[in-house]
Amino acid sequence: MPRQINLASRPSGWPTPDDFDLVEVDLPAPQEGQVLVRNLFMSVDPYMRGRMNDVKSYVPPFRLGEPLDGGAVGEVVESRAPGLKTGDLVLHGFGWREQAVLDAARVRRVEPIEGVSPSAYLGVLGMPGLTAYVGLLDIAEFKEGEAVFVSGAAGAVGSLVGQIAELKGASWVVGSAGSDEKVAHLREIGFDAAFNYRNGPVGEQLRQAAPDGVDVYFDNVGAEHLEAAIDSLRTGGRVAMCGAIAVYNATEPPCAPRNLFQAVGKRLTLRGFIVGDHSTRMPDMIAEVGGWLREGRITADETVVEGLENAPEAFIGLLSGANTGKMVVRL
Amino acid sequence: MPRQINLASRPSGWPTPDDFDLVEVDLPAPQEGQVLVRNLFMSVDPYMRGRMNDVKSYVPPFRLGEPLDGGAVGEVVESRAPGLKTGDLVLHGFGWREQAVLDAARVRRVEPIEGVSPSAYLGVLGMPGLTAYVGLLDIAEFKEGEAVFVSGAAGAVGSLVGQIAELKGASWVVGSAGSDEKVAHLREIGFDAAFNYRNGPVGEQLRQAAPDGVDVYFDNVGAEHLEAAIDSLRTGGRVAMCGAIAVYNATEPPCAPRNLFQAVGKRLTLRGFIVGDHSTRMPDMIAEVGGWLREGRITADETVVEGLENAPEAFIGLLSGANTGKMVVRL
Repeated sequence: MPRQINLASRPSGWPTPDDFDLVEVDLPAPQEGQVLVRNLFMSVDPYMRGRMNDVKSYVPPFRLGEPLDGGAVGEVVESRAPGLKTGDLVLHGFGWREQAVLDAARVRRVEPIEGVSPSAYLGVLGMPGLTAYVGLLDIAEFKEGEAVFVSGAAGAVGSLVGQIAELKGASWVVGSAGSDEKVAHLREIGFDAAFNYRNGPVGEQLRQAAPDGVDVYFDNVGAEHLEAAIDSLRTGGRVAMCGAIAVYNATEPPCAPRNLFQAVGKRLTLRGFIVGDHSTRMPDMIAEVGGWLREGRITADETVVEGLENAPEAFIGLLSGANTGKMVVRL
Repeated sequence: MPRQINLASRPSGWPTPDDFDLVEVDLPAPQEGQVLVRNLFMSVDPYMRGRMNDVKSYVPPFRLGEPLDGGAVGEVVESRAPGLKTGDLVLHGFGWREQAVLDAARVRRVEPIEGVSPSAYLGVLGMPGLTAYVGLLDIAEFKEGEAVFVSGAAGAVGSLVGQIAELKGASWVVGSAGSDEKVAHLREIGFDAAFNYRNGPVGEQLRQAAPDGVDVYFDNVGAEHLEAAIDSLRTGGRVAMCGAIAVYNATEPPCAPRNLFQAVGKRLTLRGFIVGDHSTRMPDMIAEVGGWLREGRITADETVVEGLENAPEAFIGLLSGANTGKMVVRL
């Protein structure tokens, strides 16, 4: 029988394996208009942590005793829906399970790309790619010749932000990450400077890595990183607020940034965004980033974990930075 | 001999009268191209507190042992400059002194308005008026039908923000101020709701005063007020960050807002601004706000302190909220 992962309990602070239940399920046969999909890859993403809390947010919370969900790419194994046939590659929102019976309206057929893993649709050509693209270009209004700082730079979104900025003519791109190996890797994929935030105060390291300051900060982390960025932002600087991974597991709200009043004198703009509002930009992103991908000008890092039974640990690992680039689980 | 006020010492935390020196000066006679101006009114403004610190900001710090400066309106008593004659009303940046000898390029001739004190050019038709106008309409992008919260609402800028929002069709306007008298006054000049922030937690009082939340927050205060506003802002809300009077005298940076990460899920925009960048909007403001003023549709509150010798106390009083509306000193 196919397996799925249910939410066993709501984590307080850091999630643990006990918060997840691996169960077998008896799937019904697809009805008229439905397909049976075998998932090939599922995504684990930081925003899922928020949905494990019982609080209203921009997406509803996960329910106790029911399967988690999230981005997945799979193969149609049985179709009773017109326009979809066995063997089709589909993208959908029912991850955390090996198989799913879905209405045709809930899946989107995607083209296999030669030499590129289908998991790209969960990463560089999917939500993380669009997040990086929209956040940098539309929200932070990055312009050629500007200097960019991105936190969580070795993550799925961050590594694309830095590379897109370089490809679009940034004067300087700095990334922060959580290990020396990741920092070395960022330099390899084209970052001008990078530092390990565990090696010392973020503010000091950022000042050394970008002595002339930055124009744009793409924030995946919040708290101390955001405070450091505000100190380093030049007049007219912009912050794209994408996530706050430093805050997700905090049981007490962090006492930062304490320097937000600098936004007045420096004329800063801080703007939060949710990628789901910007799906109309998906074709632009796929055209531009897909082109760079085919030309070998962009590196789409992936960390692949094997097997649904390891998905909870993949997710917990993601929150502590065990991944380089997009973290996916192969099912 | 005319008198002026010098900066005697840089305040640590709250300024005290000892930080100011009242001195007599022997002014030179005006040279070719200069005028001698007798000041009628000088402005005290919160931003002056920042200039008393020895830190680089968007305006240079005041210098020890030299006169303070700031907005003033005066009368030409002797002119050696073409285009300016005795009796002309002029606006300039050399307040904190009874008289000044100035190059003609440093003064701007303004028209006396019948029935309106010349001090209006320091308030509703001056920098505070432009700050309210630009901050609400351009920075926060207020639109008809939206709900607005303004802190420091009984101040020079805040009282105009609330009234402009009402005149432009706000669905709900809430103000906070520091005394029950000011709160009562805000209701008289057209605010839909108002509360005294000293009477209880700002967040709770704001939720009661605007149970459906707000779309725009005009921030004059920072810290706890900003945190409360972030909690109450609706999806897509905007903050015009104008000042942070709660922070100016703080020797430790305040530990707020601790909820800034909400900007992501709520798609908030926080934008700092300095009115000096927006002087091109002055004619629009004077046309629109001046029209309301003549029609008696806007209340331009003023608190007038008499005599240069009382200017330091006027300024210190301003920082603790001793004013309703624009605080000026009559010289």
